[in-house]
Amino acid sequence: MNYPNGIKKDNSISLSTLKNSKNRGMTLENDLNETNEYYRDIDKAIIYKKPTPIKIVKVDYPSRSETKIKEAYFTVPSTTDYNGIYKGFYIDYEAKETRSKTSFSLENIHPHQIKHLERIHNHKGIAFIIIRFTTLNETYLLKIEDFLSFINNNDRKSIPIDYFKEKGYLIKDGYRPRVDYLKVVDSILEVYECEK
Amino acid sequence: MNYPNGIKKDNSISLSTLKNSKNRGMTLENDLNETNEYYRDIDKAIIYKKPTPIKIVKVDYPSRSETKIKEAYFTVPSTTDYNGIYKGFYIDYEAKETRSKTSFSLENIHPHQIKHLERIHNHKGIAFIIIRFTTLNETYLLKIEDFLSFINNNDRKSIPIDYFKEKGYLIKDGYRPRVDYLKVVDSILEVYECEK
Repeated sequence: MNYPNGIKKDNSISLSTLKNSKNRGMTLENDLNETNEYYRDIDKAIIYKKPTPIKIVKVDYPSRSETKIKEAYFTVPSTTDYNGIYKGFYIDYEAKETRSKTSFSLENIHPHQIKHLERIHNHKGIAFIIIRFTTLNETYLLKIEDFLSFINNNDRKSIPIDYFKEKGYLIKDGYRPRVDYLKVVDSILEVYECEK
Repeated sequence: MNYPNGIKKDNSISLSTLKNSKNRGMTLENDLNETNEYYRDIDKAIIYKKPTPIKIVKVDYPSRSETKIKEAYFTVPSTTDYNGIYKGFYIDYEAKETRSKTSFSLENIHPHQIKHLERIHNHKGIAFIIIRFTTLNETYLLKIEDFLSFINNNDRKSIPIDYFKEKGYLIKDGYRPRVDYLKVVDSILEVYECEK
Protein backbone atom coordinates (compact mmCIF):
# COMPACT_ATOMS: atom_id res chain seq x y z
CA MET A 1 0.00 0.00 0.00
CA ASN A 2 1.11 3.54 -0.73
CA TYR A 3 0.32 6.53 1.37
CA PRO A 4 1.57 9.29 -0.90
CA ASN A 5 0.83 12.15 1.43
CA GLY A 6 0.37 9.99 4.46
CA ILE A 7 2.68 11.68 6.88
CA LYS A 8 1.72 15.12 5.75
CA LYS A 9 -1.96 14.43 6.10
CA ASP A 10 -1.33 12.92 9.45
CA ASN A 11 0.46 15.95 10.72
CA SER A 12 -2.38 18.19 9.72
CA ILE A 13 -4.80 16.01 11.71
CA SER A 14 -2.63 16.10 14.77
CA LEU A 15 -2.11 19.80 14.41
CA SER A 16 -5.78 20.55 14.18
CA THR A 17 -6.19 18.44 17.29
CA LEU A 18 -3.51 20.47 18.94
CA LYS A 19 -4.95 23.81 17.93
CA ASN A 20 -8.46 22.84 18.83
CA SER A 21 -7.61 21.65 22.27
CA LYS A 22 -8.17 25.25 23.33
CA ASN A 23 -11.73 25.21 22.02
CA ARG A 24 -13.15 22.32 23.97
CA GLY A 25 -16.38 21.02 22.57
CA MET A 26 -15.91 22.66 19.20
CA THR A 27 -14.55 19.68 17.32
CA LEU A 28 -15.84 16.19 16.69
CA GLU A 29 -12.83 14.84 18.54
CA ASN A 30 -13.64 16.83 21.65
CA ASP A 31 -17.31 15.93 21.41
CA LEU A 32 -16.41 12.25 21.18
CA ASN A 33 -13.97 12.49 24.07
CA GLU A 34 -16.66 14.07 26.24
CA THR A 35 -19.20 11.52 25.09
CA ASN A 36 -16.90 8.61 25.87
CA GLU A 37 -16.12 10.13 29.26
CA TYR A 38 -19.85 10.33 29.91
CA TYR A 39 -20.33 6.71 28.86
CA ARG A 40 -17.57 5.67 31.25
CA ASP A 41 -19.01 7.80 34.07
CA ILE A 42 -22.38 6.06 33.83
CA ASP A 43 -20.61 2.74 33.17
CA LYS A 44 -22.38 2.26 29.85
CA ALA A 45 -19.26 1.53 27.78
CA ILE A 46 -15.49 1.65 28.19
CA ILE A 47 -14.24 3.40 25.07
CA TYR A 48 -11.13 5.56 24.79
CA LYS A 49 -9.29 7.53 22.16
CA LYS A 50 -5.82 6.12 21.61
CA PRO A 51 -2.84 8.41 22.10
CA THR A 52 -1.44 10.00 18.94
CA PRO A 53 1.46 7.88 17.71
CA ILE A 54 4.80 9.65 17.60
CA LYS A 55 8.35 8.65 16.89
CA ILE A 56 10.71 9.85 19.60
CA VAL A 57 14.17 10.85 18.35
CA LYS A 58 15.79 12.73 21.21
CA VAL A 59 15.17 12.88 24.97
CA ASP A 60 16.69 14.92 27.73
CA TYR A 61 16.79 14.39 31.50
CA PRO A 62 16.67 17.82 33.11
CA SER A 63 16.21 16.18 36.52
CA ARG A 64 16.15 12.69 37.94
CA SER A 65 12.41 12.44 37.85
CA GLU A 66 11.74 14.24 34.61
CA THR A 67 12.14 13.17 31.03
CA LYS A 68 11.82 15.78 28.35
CA ILE A 69 11.22 14.78 24.76
CA LYS A 70 13.25 17.20 22.66
CA GLU A 71 12.66 15.83 19.19
CA ALA A 72 9.77 13.73 17.95
CA TYR A 73 7.55 13.38 14.89
CA PHE A 74 3.99 12.36 14.23
CA THR A 75 3.76 8.97 12.56
CA VAL A 76 1.07 7.30 10.48
CA PRO A 77 -1.27 5.46 12.85
CA SER A 78 -1.54 1.67 12.36
CA THR A 79 -5.12 1.54 13.49
CA THR A 80 -8.09 3.75 14.19
CA ASP A 81 -8.42 6.38 16.88
CA TYR A 82 -11.10 4.85 19.10
CA ASN A 83 -11.80 1.43 20.51
CA GLY A 84 -13.33 -0.23 23.53
CA ILE A 85 -16.15 -2.40 24.76
CA TYR A 86 -19.93 -1.99 24.76
CA LYS A 87 -22.44 -4.65 25.82
CA GLY A 88 -19.64 -7.19 25.57
CA PHE A 89 -18.89 -6.22 21.97
CA TYR A 90 -15.57 -4.94 20.71
CA ILE A 91 -16.13 -1.45 19.27
CA ASP A 92 -13.72 0.21 16.83
CA TYR A 93 -14.09 3.39 14.81
CA GLU A 94 -12.44 6.31 13.12
CA ALA A 95 -13.86 9.84 13.25
CA LYS A 96 -13.34 12.56 10.65
CA GLU A 97 -14.59 16.03 9.95
CA THR A 98 -15.09 17.61 6.56
CA ARG A 99 -16.00 21.15 5.60
CA SER A 100 -17.53 19.99 2.34
CA LYS A 101 -21.32 20.24 2.11
CA THR A 102 -21.64 17.61 -0.55
CA SER A 103 -19.24 14.72 0.01
CA PHE A 104 -16.56 13.10 2.15
CA SER A 105 -13.22 12.79 0.35
CA LEU A 106 -11.63 9.37 0.70
CA GLU A 107 -8.25 11.05 0.97
CA ASN A 108 -9.17 11.84 4.57
CA ILE A 109 -8.94 8.26 5.68
CA HIS A 110 -5.88 6.01 5.44
CA PRO A 111 -6.29 2.81 3.40
CA HIS A 112 -4.84 0.77 6.30
CA GLN A 113 -7.45 2.23 8.65
CA ILE A 114 -10.17 0.98 6.29
CA LYS A 115 -8.45 -2.40 6.11
CA HIS A 116 -8.24 -2.46 9.92
CA LEU A 117 -11.97 -1.77 10.28
CA GLU A 118 -12.75 -4.46 7.72
CA ARG A 119 -10.73 -6.98 9.71
CA ILE A 120 -12.46 -5.98 12.95
CA HIS A 121 -15.80 -6.54 11.26
CA ASN A 122 -14.67 -9.97 10.05
CA HIS A 123 -13.68 -10.80 13.64
CA LYS A 124 -17.20 -9.95 14.82
CA GLY A 125 -16.40 -6.52 16.20
CA ILE A 126 -18.60 -3.46 15.62
CA ALA A 127 -16.66 -1.28 13.17
CA PHE A 128 -17.70 2.04 11.67
CA ILE A 129 -16.71 5.58 10.80
CA ILE A 130 -18.19 8.76 12.20
CA ILE A 131 -18.16 11.67 9.74
CA ARG A 132 -19.15 15.19 10.63
CA PHE A 133 -20.07 17.63 7.89
CA THR A 134 -19.08 20.66 9.94
CA THR A 135 -20.61 23.30 7.67
CA LEU A 136 -23.98 21.54 7.83
CA ASN A 137 -23.46 20.47 11.42
CA GLU A 138 -24.54 16.93 10.56
CA THR A 139 -22.80 13.89 12.02
CA TYR A 140 -23.26 10.44 10.49
CA LEU A 141 -22.27 6.98 11.55
CA LEU A 142 -21.59 4.63 8.63
CA LYS A 143 -20.95 0.93 9.19
CA ILE A 144 -17.74 -0.31 7.65
CA GLU A 145 -19.73 -2.81 5.53
CA ASP A 146 -21.59 0.06 3.88
CA PHE A 147 -18.40 2.08 3.52
CA LEU A 148 -16.71 -0.86 1.77
CA SER A 149 -19.74 -1.54 -0.36
CA PHE A 150 -19.49 2.03 -1.66
CA ILE A 151 -15.77 2.04 -2.42
CA ASN A 152 -15.92 -1.43 -3.99
CA ASN A 153 -18.71 -0.41 -6.34
CA ASN A 154 -17.63 3.10 -7.24
CA ASP A 155 -14.63 4.75 -8.84
CA ARG A 156 -15.35 8.04 -7.09
CA LYS A 157 -12.76 9.51 -4.78
CA SER A 158 -15.41 10.77 -2.39
CA ILE A 159 -18.65 9.54 -0.86
CA PRO A 160 -21.59 11.86 -1.55
CA ILE A 161 -23.56 13.02 1.46
CA ASP A 162 -26.65 11.35 0.00
CA TYR A 163 -25.01 7.99 0.59
CA PHE A 164 -24.62 8.87 4.27
CA LYS A 165 -28.26 9.96 4.38
CA GLU A 166 -29.33 6.69 2.76
CA LYS A 167 -27.07 4.10 4.39
CA GLY A 168 -25.70 5.90 7.42
CA TYR A 169 -27.30 6.95 10.67
CA LEU A 170 -27.67 10.59 11.63
CA ILE A 171 -26.41 11.16 15.17
CA LYS A 172 -28.37 13.88 16.91
CA ASP A 173 -26.56 16.63 18.78
CA GLY A 174 -27.06 16.60 22.48
CA TYR A 175 -25.86 18.23 25.66
CA ARG A 176 -24.70 15.21 27.62
CA PRO A 177 -23.69 13.09 25.84
CA ARG A 178 -22.88 15.43 22.98
CA VAL A 179 -22.92 12.76 20.27
CA ASP A 180 -24.89 9.78 21.50
CA TYR A 181 -23.57 7.35 18.90
CA LEU A 182 -24.22 4.29 21.07
CA LYS A 183 -27.93 4.84 20.47
CA VAL A 184 -27.16 4.20 16.81
CA VAL A 185 -24.98 1.22 17.72
CA ASP A 186 -28.02 -0.20 19.54
CA SER A 187 -30.03 -0.14 16.31
CA ILE A 188 -27.13 -1.79 14.49
CA LEU A 189 -26.94 -4.52 17.13
CA GLU A 190 -30.67 -5.15 16.76
CA VAL A 191 -30.27 -5.62 13.02
CA TYR A 192 -27.29 -7.95 13.56
CA GLU A 193 -29.37 -9.96 16.03
CA CYS A 194 -32.21 -10.32 13.49
CA GLU A 195 -29.79 -11.43 10.79
CA LYS A 196 -28.50 -14.27 12.95
CA MET B 1 -6.75 7.85 43.95
CA ASN B 2 -3.17 8.90 44.53
CA TYR B 3 -0.27 8.12 42.27
CA PRO B 4 2.61 9.29 44.45
CA ASN B 5 5.37 8.53 42.02
CA GLY B 6 3.10 8.08 39.04
CA ILE B 7 4.81 10.30 36.55
CA LYS B 8 8.24 9.25 37.60
CA LYS B 9 7.40 5.59 37.36
CA ASP B 10 5.83 6.20 34.04
CA ASN B 11 8.90 7.83 32.65
CA SER B 12 11.01 4.93 33.65
CA ILE B 13 8.69 2.56 31.80
CA SER B 14 8.78 4.66 28.69
CA LEU B 15 12.50 5.02 28.90
CA SER B 16 13.08 1.33 29.19
CA THR B 17 10.87 0.96 26.15
CA LEU B 18 13.00 3.51 24.37
CA LYS B 19 16.29 1.96 25.34
CA ASN B 20 15.19 -1.54 24.54
CA SER B 21 13.92 -0.70 21.12
CA LYS B 22 17.46 -1.33 19.97
CA ASN B 23 17.44 -4.88 21.36
CA ARG B 24 14.47 -6.29 19.53
CA GLY B 25 13.16 -9.50 21.00
CA MET B 26 14.89 -9.02 24.32
CA THR B 27 12.00 -7.55 26.28
CA LEU B 28 8.50 -8.72 27.04
CA GLU B 29 7.18 -5.72 25.13
CA ASN B 30 9.05 -6.68 21.99
CA ASP B 31 8.04 -10.31 22.36
CA LEU B 32 4.40 -9.27 22.67
CA ASN B 33 4.65 -6.93 19.71
CA GLU B 34 6.07 -9.73 17.58
CA THR B 35 3.46 -12.14 18.89
CA ASN B 36 0.61 -9.76 18.11
CA GLU B 37 2.06 -9.13 14.66
CA TYR B 38 2.11 -12.88 14.11
CA TYR B 39 -1.49 -13.21 15.28
CA ARG B 40 -2.49 -10.48 12.84
CA ASP B 41 -0.51 -12.09 10.02
CA ILE B 42 -2.36 -15.37 10.40
CA ASP B 43 -5.59 -13.46 11.11
CA LYS B 44 -6.04 -15.13 14.50
CA ALA B 45 -6.60 -11.93 16.48
CA ILE B 46 -6.36 -8.17 15.95
CA ILE B 47 -4.49 -6.90 19.00
CA TYR B 48 -2.20 -3.86 19.12
CA LYS B 49 -0.10 -2.01 21.63
CA LYS B 50 -1.36 1.52 22.11
CA PRO B 51 1.02 4.40 21.47
CA THR B 52 2.75 5.84 24.55
CA PRO B 53 0.74 8.83 25.75
CA ILE B 54 2.60 12.12 25.70
CA LYS B 55 1.74 15.74 26.32
CA ILE B 56 2.92 17.99 23.51
CA VAL B 57 4.07 21.44 24.61
CA LYS B 58 5.90 22.92 21.66
CA VAL B 59 5.94 22.21 17.94
CA ASP B 60 7.96 23.58 15.07
CA TYR B 61 7.33 23.61 11.32
CA PRO B 62 10.72 23.32 9.63
CA SER B 63 9.00 22.81 6.27
CA ARG B 64 5.47 22.81 4.90
CA SER B 65 5.10 19.08 5.13
CA GLU B 66 6.95 18.46 8.36
CA THR B 67 5.96 19.00 11.95
CA LYS B 68 8.62 18.68 14.57
CA ILE B 69 7.72 18.22 18.20
CA LYS B 70 10.25 20.24 20.17
CA GLU B 71 8.96 19.77 23.70
CA ALA B 72 6.82 16.99 25.08
CA TYR B 73 6.50 14.86 28.22
CA PHE B 74 5.40 11.34 29.01
CA THR B 75 2.06 11.25 30.79
CA VAL B 76 0.39 8.67 33.00
CA PRO B 77 -1.62 6.33 30.77
CA SER B 78 -5.39 6.20 31.40
CA THR B 79 -5.68 2.61 30.33
CA THR B 80 -3.58 -0.46 29.67
CA ASP B 81 -1.05 -0.96 26.91
CA TYR B 82 -2.74 -3.63 24.83
CA ASN B 83 -6.22 -4.24 23.53
CA GLY B 84 -8.02 -5.81 20.62
CA ILE B 85 -10.33 -8.58 19.52
CA TYR B 86 -10.05 -12.37 19.63
CA LYS B 87 -12.83 -14.81 18.71
CA GLY B 88 -15.26 -11.92 18.97
CA PHE B 89 -14.15 -11.12 22.52
CA TYR B 90 -12.72 -7.81 23.62
CA ILE B 91 -9.22 -8.45 24.98
CA ASP B 92 -7.40 -6.03 27.30
CA TYR B 93 -4.18 -6.45 29.23
CA GLU B 94 -1.15 -4.87 30.78
CA ALA B 95 2.32 -6.42 30.60
CA LYS B 96 5.14 -5.94 33.10
CA GLU B 97 8.59 -7.28 33.74
CA THR B 98 10.25 -7.73 37.08
CA ARG B 99 13.79 -8.74 37.97
CA SER B 100 12.67 -10.14 41.31
CA LYS B 101 12.81 -13.93 41.63
CA THR B 102 10.23 -14.09 44.40
CA SER B 103 7.42 -11.59 43.84
CA PHE B 104 5.82 -8.92 41.68
CA SER B 105 5.68 -5.53 43.37
CA LEU B 106 2.31 -3.81 43.08
CA GLU B 107 4.11 -0.51 42.65
CA ASN B 108 4.75 -1.57 39.07
CA ILE B 109 1.15 -1.23 38.06
CA HIS B 110 -0.99 1.92 38.28
CA PRO B 111 -4.14 1.68 40.42
CA HIS B 112 -6.22 3.11 37.56
CA GLN B 113 -4.93 0.39 35.23
CA ILE B 114 -6.17 -2.21 37.71
CA LYS B 115 -9.50 -0.36 37.93
CA HIS B 116 -9.66 -0.27 34.13
CA LEU B 117 -9.11 -4.02 33.85
CA GLU B 118 -11.76 -4.64 36.51
CA ARG B 119 -14.26 -2.57 34.52
CA ILE B 120 -13.41 -4.43 31.32
CA HIS B 121 -14.05 -7.71 33.13
CA ASN B 122 -17.40 -6.41 34.40
CA HIS B 123 -18.30 -5.50 30.81
CA LYS B 124 -17.61 -9.09 29.72
CA GLY B 125 -14.20 -8.46 28.21
CA ILE B 126 -11.20 -10.74 28.76
CA ALA B 127 -8.88 -8.82 31.09
CA PHE B 128 -5.56 -9.93 32.52
CA ILE B 129 -1.97 -9.04 33.25
CA ILE B 130 1.13 -10.68 31.81
CA ILE B 131 4.09 -10.69 34.17
CA ARG B 132 7.57 -11.83 33.22
CA PHE B 133 10.06 -12.75 35.92
CA THR B 134 13.05 -11.91 33.73
CA THR B 135 15.70 -13.48 35.97
CA LEU B 136 13.82 -16.79 35.98
CA ASN B 137 12.66 -16.34 32.38
CA GLU B 138 9.12 -17.28 33.40
CA THR B 139 6.10 -15.47 31.97
CA TYR B 140 2.67 -15.75 33.61
CA LEU B 141 -0.79 -14.67 32.63
CA LEU B 142 -3.00 -13.81 35.60
CA LYS B 143 -6.70 -13.07 35.13
CA ILE B 144 -7.79 -9.76 36.61
CA GLU B 145 -10.29 -11.60 38.86
CA ASP B 146 -7.43 -13.51 40.48
CA PHE B 147 -5.30 -10.40 40.68
CA LEU B 148 -8.12 -8.55 42.46
CA SER B 149 -8.84 -11.49 44.71
CA PHE B 150 -5.23 -11.33 45.88
CA ILE B 151 -5.06 -7.59 46.53
CA ASN B 152 -8.48 -7.58 48.21
CA ASN B 153 -7.49 -10.34 50.62
CA ASN B 154 -3.92 -9.35 51.39
CA ASP B 155 -2.12 -6.38 52.83
CA ARG B 156 1.08 -7.25 51.03
CA LYS B 157 2.57 -4.78 48.58
CA SER B 158 3.66 -7.55 46.25
CA ILE B 159 2.28 -10.78 44.84
CA PRO B 160 4.51 -13.78 45.55
CA ILE B 161 5.52 -15.87 42.56
CA ASP B 162 3.79 -18.87 44.16
CA TYR B 163 0.47 -17.13 43.64
CA PHE B 164 1.26 -16.89 39.91
CA LYS B 165 2.21 -20.56 39.89
CA GLU B 166 -1.04 -21.45 41.65
CA LYS B 167 -3.62 -19.16 40.02
CA GLY B 168 -1.84 -17.93 36.91
CA TYR B 169 -0.96 -19.65 33.67
CA LEU B 170 2.64 -20.18 32.61
CA ILE B 171 3.14 -19.06 29.01
CA LYS B 172 5.74 -21.15 27.26
CA ASP B 173 8.49 -19.49 25.25
CA GLY B 174 8.34 -20.11 21.55
CA TYR B 175 9.90 -19.07 18.31
CA ARG B 176 6.87 -17.84 16.39
CA PRO B 177 4.84 -16.71 18.20
CA ARG B 178 7.29 -15.91 20.99
CA VAL B 179 4.71 -15.76 23.77
CA ASP B 180 1.62 -17.67 22.69
CA TYR B 181 -0.67 -16.17 25.31
CA LEU B 182 -3.82 -16.79 23.26
CA LYS B 183 -3.38 -20.49 23.95
CA VAL B 184 -3.88 -19.60 27.61
CA VAL B 185 -6.82 -17.35 26.72
CA ASP B 186 -8.39 -20.38 25.03
CA SER B 187 -8.30 -22.30 28.33
CA ILE B 188 -9.81 -19.28 30.10
CA LEU B 189 -12.60 -19.07 27.53
CA GLU B 190 -13.34 -22.77 28.04
CA VAL B 191 -13.69 -22.23 31.79
CA TYR B 192 -15.93 -19.19 31.23
CA GLU B 193 -18.08 -21.28 28.87
CA CYS B 194 -18.45 -24.02 31.50
CA GLU B 195 -19.40 -21.48 34.18
CA LYS B 196 -22.27 -20.17 32.07
